[in-house]
Amino acid sequence: MSGRVKGFCFAGVHGGVKAGDALDLGLIFAEGPAVASGVFTRNRVRAAPVVISERRLRSGLCQAILVNSGNANACTGKQGQRSALALTRAAAASLRVPSSLVVPASTGVIGVQLPRENIEAAIPKLVADLSEAGATRFARAIMTTDRGPKVAQAEVKVGRTTCRLLGIAKGAGMIHPNMATTLAFVTTDAPLKQATLSKLLRQATELSFNRATVDGDTSTNDSIYVLASGAATNRPLEDKSAAGRRFVAALTEVLESLAKKIVADGEGAEHLVRIEVRGARTDADAVQIARTIAGSQLVKTALHGCDPNWGRILAAAGRSGARFNPDHVSMKIGEVLIFEEGTAVMTAKTEAKAAATMKRPEFEIALTVGRGRGLGHYWTCDLGHEYVRINADYRT
Amino acid sequence: MSGRVKGFCFAGVHGGVKAGDALDLGLIFAEGPAVASGVFTRNRVRAAPVVISERRLRSGLCQAILVNSGNANACTGKQGQRSALALTRAAAASLRVPSSLVVPASTGVIGVQLPRENIEAAIPKLVADLSEAGATRFARAIMTTDRGPKVAQAEVKVGRTTCRLLGIAKGAGMIHPNMATTLAFVTTDAPLKQATLSKLLRQATELSFNRATVDGDTSTNDSIYVLASGAATNRPLEDKSAAGRRFVAALTEVLESLAKKIVADGEGAEHLVRIEVRGARTDADAVQIARTIAGSQLVKTALHGCDPNWGRILAAAGRSGARFNPDHVSMKIGEVLIFEEGTAVMTAKTEAKAAATMKRPEFEIALTVGRGRGLGHYWTCDLGHEYVRINADYRT
Repeated sequence: MSGRVKGFCFAGVHGGVKAGDALDLGLIFAEGPAVASGVFTRNRVRAAPVVISERRLRSGLCQAILVNSGNANACTGKQGQRSALALTRAAAASLRVPSSLVVPASTGVIGVQLPRENIEAAIPKLVADLSEAGATRFARAIMTTDRGPKVAQAEVKVGRTTCRLLGIAKGAGMIHPNMATTLAFVTTDAPLKQATLSKLLRQATELSFNRATVDGDTSTNDSIYVLASGAATNRPLEDKSAAGRRFVAALTEVLESLAKKIVADGEGAEHLVRIEVRGARTDADAVQIARTIAGSQLVKTALHGCDPNWGRILAAAGRSGARFNPDHVSMKIGEVLIFEEGTAVMTAKTEAKAAATMKRPEFEIALTVGRGRGLGHYWTCDLGHEYVRINADYRT
Repeated sequence: MSGRVKGFCFAGVHGGVKAGDALDLGLIFAEGPAVASGVFTRNRVRAAPVVISERRLRSGLCQAILVNSGNANACTGKQGQRSALALTRAAAASLRVPSSLVVPASTGVIGVQLPRENIEAAIPKLVADLSEAGATRFARAIMTTDRGPKVAQAEVKVGRTTCRLLGIAKGAGMIHPNMATTLAFVTTDAPLKQATLSKLLRQATELSFNRATVDGDTSTNDSIYVLASGAATNRPLEDKSAAGRRFVAALTEVLESLAKKIVADGEGAEHLVRIEVRGARTDADAVQIARTIAGSQLVKTALHGCDPNWGRILAAAGRSGARFNPDHVSMKIGEVLIFEEGTAVMTAKTEAKAAATMKRPEFEIALTVGRGRGLGHYWTCDLGHEYVRINADYRT
């Protein structure tokens, strides 16, 4: 696929936030006002761009997103608000659109004022950089501790037309539900009404970003934006139509792909692990068990050591708050059964096989916790020395 | 103080659980049936000794506690239950007391059957080792990854008599509320009725072990036992009397001292940190904020790096679920004000001072989150490379 979506241009330049000449300023621009929706951090401490974006997206329309990395513009008080507003005004003027149709997003260090003048001075260069093929530069411009740009694409048939979705994200730590981005942007040429888009975005987020954890922390800036140009075809998608169901599946696929890239890029992570829980009383119980296992420091260090330590997994399930009978628990690592109906069944041979599975970059741990119909999963990664190194030294 | 409490003897020997000749079997013995109470893990997965202890302590009396380290006897099914029962029977026979007055406790690896015959064979030697001065040997015998034995003492005046409390604990990981031990044993010669002891133990636990975290994990074996011989004086303590209040203060002091030793010994920890929250709407909100900060991986790695990263602390507070206005937050590290009324006030000089405070083995981070009367605290430690090393390699 091409990294292009009808009706959108992308840009990425150096805007004087990061040192040297690293890309740190990105722009997404729609040819006309796009139908828009967002999901934002539930943290009580919310960065200035989150507050402004949420307010502006209430109109249901958006034409441009101005993103900087290197500085989160969080905990920056009234001055931070003024900077974010001024920068969207400057971008709007340069793009010749109303500033109410421009939203800001920021990621990086907390508590430091944005270098507003540097960014303002770079905006003409940023607008000049806009192109239909600019997605990769944009993806690079929004990176912080990411090991690389994160892009995911999908297609959906609507009647005879093929609509496209292009997702771009950044994030490698401070990842946990409610919201697990840090930042994600999806553009699509599918035609949607705002109410439909909002509803489908919430559904897709619940099954993707809200099922992923690196370290249980939720940032002040976590946001997902979706912009729909409608450039592919005219008839709006209905959420309960077959095309609507295909669209939400495609949106979930794009967001899950981005969420997995973020978890796999979890600061220092070497293994991307899916925790799958079956047989719980309800889906909510299953997700709760999977989430608790996925978030356990002891489980995550065992994942780092490629150690099939079912005791820690079972203990984490036990403190999840969900009701189940430990005597009915079975557990597999990849294809290897290690625990059955409440008892360890590992032999030296199967233990070696399980440990070998755990050396893979991606694998699944599946628990059956009873005979219920509840089903749920969570994505997590291992916790290793790199995580400690990155996070003990990030600011200094 | 002497490490002795009237009416109690202690022992610690090698019982063939651990390799070599390391102490791994401990015994507490009361001259007569002692008034007893316990607090046990709320994990749904409960080890055999937890199930048996809880059931036997319902009588309100206990005369002996048989403890092994090196093996948790958890997830060991019916055979594990039978082993624990058989071992308390063997100890009871050797001590010439009813086995209903003997409770078991275990700590160590999960999912492996106890070497029951080895332990049974060691019981005569264990009983022969009992002495009033044996507390330190007992404390050593219950250690797993602990860097050293954990003992705390206190005295309470009851009328003209001085009553004593002696607490012994083990634990260095898998520490979090509901229960934060792993194992703790308090003996006292104070005279208490069982209902009073249970009530005061719950109060003291809430303010001590339930305010401490190493890694958020709750084990299958966490337990606190309190045995009161009443040997010091005859008149039972009432919980609402002045002496009762002094007793609960002393019990809290002993349990908090043990909890702090456990957190300070958190696997690989270099800093013991008290998170103090004031000005919340309620005490529960304050504790909730303190708990979330104390449990944040990003905060804990910043503690390891001695980095006064108030942004991570504030972000953790923001996702705690407690309501507060970020613009009213102030924060101190030790005596150094770093954040005031929603804004960072750190200069290069105060940052250096804050970083110097964070190099200490013990310090406090204090947040004021508003003008409410809610107050709460939590003990935590840093998360460093040692934690990863110990926990990525523990089983293998």
